[in-house]
Amino acid sequence: MNEIKIFETADSMRSQVFEWKKSGFTTGFVPTMGYLHEGHLALLEKAGETCDKVVMSIFVNPAQFGEGEDFETYPRDFERDMKLAQSKNADAVFFPSTKEMYPENYQTYVELEKLPGFLCGKSRYGHFKGVATVVSKLFNIVDPDFAFFGEKDFQQLAVIKQMAKDLNFPVKVKGVPIVREKDGLAMSSRNSYLSEDERKNAVLIYKGILRARELIQKGESDPEKVKAETKSFVLGYKNAEIDYITICDPDTLEDVSVIEGKSVLLAAAVYFGKTRLIDNMVITPKN
Amino acid sequence: MNEIKIFETADSMRSQVFEWKKSGFTTGFVPTMGYLHEGHLALLEKAGETCDKVVMSIFVNPAQFGEGEDFETYPRDFERDMKLAQSKNADAVFFPSTKEMYPENYQTYVELEKLPGFLCGKSRYGHFKGVATVVSKLFNIVDPDFAFFGEKDFQQLAVIKQMAKDLNFPVKVKGVPIVREKDGLAMSSRNSYLSEDERKNAVLIYKGILRARELIQKGESDPEKVKAETKSFVLGYKNAEIDYITICDPDTLEDVSVIEGKSVLLAAAVYFGKTRLIDNMVITPKN
Repeated sequence: MNEIKIFETADSMRSQVFEWKKSGFTTGFVPTMGYLHEGHLALLEKAGETCDKVVMSIFVNPAQFGEGEDFETYPRDFERDMKLAQSKNADAVFFPSTKEMYPENYQTYVELEKLPGFLCGKSRYGHFKGVATVVSKLFNIVDPDFAFFGEKDFQQLAVIKQMAKDLNFPVKVKGVPIVREKDGLAMSSRNSYLSEDERKNAVLIYKGILRARELIQKGESDPEKVKAETKSFVLGYKNAEIDYITICDPDTLEDVSVIEGKSVLLAAAVYFGKTRLIDNMVITPKN
Repeated sequence: MNEIKIFETADSMRSQVFEWKKSGFTTGFVPTMGYLHEGHLALLEKAGETCDKVVMSIFVNPAQFGEGEDFETYPRDFERDMKLAQSKNADAVFFPSTKEMYPENYQTYVELEKLPGFLCGKSRYGHFKGVATVVSKLFNIVDPDFAFFGEKDFQQLAVIKQMAKDLNFPVKVKGVPIVREKDGLAMSSRNSYLSEDERKNAVLIYKGILRARELIQKGESDPEKVKAETKSFVLGYKNAEIDYITICDPDTLEDVSVIEGKSVLLAAAVYFGKTRLIDNMVITPKN
């Protein structure tokens, strides 16, 4: 097992990747907010398969949390994260302080005009501005050849792909499929917030999505009927509250009025108690 | 004289710089909107002194022109620009189309929260958003070690320095002093708009600034008195109309209430007929 290096400043991190580049090594980058789960480990594995060197960042980014969201309480466990990253042969971890990333007089933000207007962007105002900004900074600091993001945050992946293309970042942005618990719940650091009862029932989101897929593959073309079915699964739990269930175009994230021919994205955000969970699936209709 | 290369796509431009980098060459970058004057040539000279290779871009950026501004009529002369760039030993010119820079579905913008709220940003709404966005793109395409901007656009230079720092661009941003016509008028592509009469009188801006410097260096500490004196010089021409004359902190661009100890920036924007001209000077008080 290789020795993992920790970098706490942008300059030292950049110098390391520059040295690798001079030696002809490619770099894969996995940005995280820490508290790693199997989903993150799948990103690290993919990065290791694709590139010579792997950098993971751990930074709970205040700019992407809204008022009343869980920035302060977001789970953190650096020691455990380091062990897991090392077990997946990561070469370096970038672990900056908030002050290193947002020093005094910080004032520059990266914003997209269209993609954040859908799905999670509707209820999480400013979230994707914070995401696009911190990822721009991380791309400039780490200067990776490839960057890997989970498809669970489907809209985040879409935003980052668009941002990288628009701003001409020389980074190939890759999505990695959702990793699920044994019962089907999508892996998330926020699953740690769930009570036993909430955790047991959280799988209803996935069950509702599977039911939607079944309907669509049987030929149901009315998104309203499909969404109603998913909704009835989710609301089978008394403490569930739906933020949104959407059937949309996976490229533009715009709602579709008829499911026909082209694949659709079914995306859902649901509160289980106070915990907001998201999940999604790209579904191809039958014909 | 070396053969100058023209690149019209981001990919081809990036590949060229990548090749240079592999050979150990540093790259200096001079972004322009073309219609070169002596001010641009001073930037090219400085870039050539500082770096092994020099890239100049020519792109009249629609995103930094507001409604009713002169995007359509902005002067263009590619052949002449190429000759001038070659005379200063530039190695490459990046000359993209608008579609290459802003393809269909383009939607990502870079914005600063504080610096654009002063000086030209007040009357040119969205201008610095367009500037910060296109320079971010150009930095990612050209990947220069150094970038050179004229101090005539003092606020633009401040915005780009802040943006490069905030977003961790690995580019050293350098300002180059204003180049003036024989009579003192600051060089500008927009000087070509002036009528003979306007051109003859446009030097009054510079004369007003020199008078301000004289007062400050004699000990005048009241910015209102200094500005009034500059104003009376400028308004010596009947077709002059002042957009702003400001005495501010050169770092924050915030107005100063007393001129004392620290250097101040005197900045002015004035319409001569329909042409908006800017000029400035950093002035150190006597004590």
